[in-house]
Amino acid sequence: MDVKVLQDILAANENLARENAKLFKDKGIFVINLMASPGSGKTSFILKTAERLGNKYNMAVIEGDIASKIDSEKIKAHGIQSIQINTGGACHLEANMIKKAINHFDLEGINLLMIENVGNLVCPSDFNLGESARVVILSVPEGDDKPYKYPSIFRDCSVLIVNKVDMIGLSDFSIDRLKVAVYKLNPDVNIIPLSCRTGEGFDVWIAWLEENLEYCR
Amino acid sequence: MDVKVLQDILAANENLARENAKLFKDKGIFVINLMASPGSGKTSFILKTAERLGNKYNMAVIEGDIASKIDSEKIKAHGIQSIQINTGGACHLEANMIKKAINHFDLEGINLLMIENVGNLVCPSDFNLGESARVVILSVPEGDDKPYKYPSIFRDCSVLIVNKVDMIGLSDFSIDRLKVAVYKLNPDVNIIPLSCRTGEGFDVWIAWLEENLEYCR
Repeated sequence: MDVKVLQDILAANENLARENAKLFKDKGIFVINLMASPGSGKTSFILKTAERLGNKYNMAVIEGDIASKIDSEKIKAHGIQSIQINTGGACHLEANMIKKAINHFDLEGINLLMIENVGNLVCPSDFNLGESARVVILSVPEGDDKPYKYPSIFRDCSVLIVNKVDMIGLSDFSIDRLKVAVYKLNPDVNIIPLSCRTGEGFDVWIAWLEENLEYCR
Repeated sequence: MDVKVLQDILAANENLARENAKLFKDKGIFVINLMASPGSGKTSFILKTAERLGNKYNMAVIEGDIASKIDSEKIKAHGIQSIQINTGGACHLEANMIKKAINHFDLEGINLLMIENVGNLVCPSDFNLGESARVVILSVPEGDDKPYKYPSIFRDCSVLIVNKVDMIGLSDFSIDRLKVAVYKLNPDVNIIPLSCRTGEGFDVWIAWLEENLEYCR
């Protein structure tokens, strides 16, 4: 792509992201930009997080997909307010899409907004949405070498969730090899292994999240 | 992105892809553009295919990744000629990258060129490389709803490999639900379930491939 055009797009996105961030801060909303490959368990992770938080916090979800309303319908079926963004073809969410989507929510009283980005380990990492934190999910069947191949997304996240740890042993995945690869890129990241299926490891994630939610109030 | 700029990029890519395709046809090389999410088993699939073809055909591999030489080193360790393309940040391969990469091969005598695209279910589908066929891999842990969310890549492929079928039963993945979703987009696609780990299902894939290789000679 033409470098100038890309720079203009990114600069315009940064401006809108800052406006979103200011609004979220004013309203006391902790916002997570959740990024991962297709099929790593993003929606299951959101649902399990909601189940574990219970009625303690008020949560909203923005679902990003190229097509379909599958994920937002799944979220709504659990009584959680949710908006679906269909990008049409675009491989990532941008700040202007979030700016429009949040008009559908009553922001007063929302404590936590989870934004499920389009399933993609590459493009979403270039576009700030105004989030408070970036959380990346890598699932065990994807393999432990992904940080070497897709460094940008692992470099710029606060938390790396390693999902589907109940599948360790079915392939040659090594959590230690993964940690070596990730810490080289991002020494301060919190790596949290868990399973959305069995629930193991969720205490650590919920503790991190609640600490940040309390700080935001 | 600016629509005009995108159109110009795609048109320039199409021209180069046509040149690549002509060269491949003249040399009698069957070229596969292999596309999938990160971690779906693209490299394992290439290695198992090479093992199954044995010395019957002469194979070369182009590996596409944002960073690292992990995959091309893995391929070379099995005695197969391979070139690594590092895109630097780009989320897909383009025809000009292939045009440069093939200068590193002696094309005389090559029957099969497998191009492993950057792990991404979105962006690679817009860029022809001059391939003879597009093969998409979806692995069982990714889930059976992906065609609804990423329609473009499933619409434009000749073969859909369903990898890691040895993991069926560990999640709620249904091959029948997947087929319904895929055939709606692409009624003519060959859906081939297999496992790179156990080798089951590979006979069907190798039969399809050999038929096309013979046709190319």
